[in-house]
Amino acid sequence: MRVLGIDPGLRNMGWGIIDVSGSRISHVANGICHSAAGDLAPRLLSLHEQLTDIFETYQPDCAAVEQTFVNKDGVATLKLGQARAIALLVPAQAGVPIGEYAPNAVKKSVVGVGHAAKQQIEHMVKIQLPGVKLAGPDAADALAIAICHSFHAQSQGTLEKALARAGA
Amino acid sequence: MRVLGIDPGLRNMGWGIIDVSGSRISHVANGICHSAAGDLAPRLLSLHEQLTDIFETYQPDCAAVEQTFVNKDGVATLKLGQARAIALLVPAQAGVPIGEYAPNAVKKSVVGVGHAAKQQIEHMVKIQLPGVKLAGPDAADALAIAICHSFHAQSQGTLEKALARAGA
Repeated sequence: MRVLGIDPGLRNMGWGIIDVSGSRISHVANGICHSAAGDLAPRLLSLHEQLTDIFETYQPDCAAVEQTFVNKDGVATLKLGQARAIALLVPAQAGVPIGEYAPNAVKKSVVGVGHAAKQQIEHMVKIQLPGVKLAGPDAADALAIAICHSFHAQSQGTLEKALARAGA
Repeated sequence: MRVLGIDPGLRNMGWGIIDVSGSRISHVANGICHSAAGDLAPRLLSLHEQLTDIFETYQPDCAAVEQTFVNKDGVATLKLGQARAIALLVPAQAGVPIGEYAPNAVKKSVVGVGHAAKQQIEHMVKIQLPGVKLAGPDAADALAIAICHSFHAQSQGTLEKALARAGA
């Protein structure tokens, strides 16, 4: 199973792809989609095109997107919402299932605690994906989201198998 | 010139199309793109498909989108931001210019004052587009946004002509 993790952002949209085989994960690619400051419509169009290209190149089987943190700054929330719409639209257009995870769930999966620093995430991503070269913090976050999804999919699969064995 | 006005919303995205010829405007079509409650990604996909269909059917030359009101409810702001991303992405994909107008600017263009009630907007849209059948308040708002854009485009055109005559 190939998982694309996306860390939504208007200026920097991190992405990271891993392959999952049983309990083993391996790095495929990671990067950052940029959109330069300016009118919103061309920025959204550019992010849509870049993310669509990534889908076509790597053909992921599923996507995982970080849930957006609603903060007191309405303008920032609005921008993040607009970027997140693109992060959800592209996988939906490709017809793949999408998992959504809260930032704390991602940190807990990768680092073991819900309140981890950026550096800890980068460190653990590098340990879990040996030899990976990270395009930046947003790409590290995106790989963490993909890893989180692989854990959840795996434990769900284990649960489903256990239930099937129990005849439930 | 054919103008598509869009009133962004996740549940109800109003749209309205007018033709503009000099100072004359006429109604072409209006309606509402719906997306039922549920997961966000399929809702955004559905809105994107509906709006793309409208573009292909009516081939507008430009689009006008209402600017989003940032309120204290972060969750509502986030939802509106996600819907608005679709309202901006589809015209950008079609390669047409996009005008963005604050709600008060739209009301001032159509009703004459910045703080008009919904009913006043519907009333004035009906007067300016005789015989129009409105699909609902969101469609009336979308037509008001299109009318606002036609006024702005027109006054800009007049200014450009005056400047050309003056040899500026």
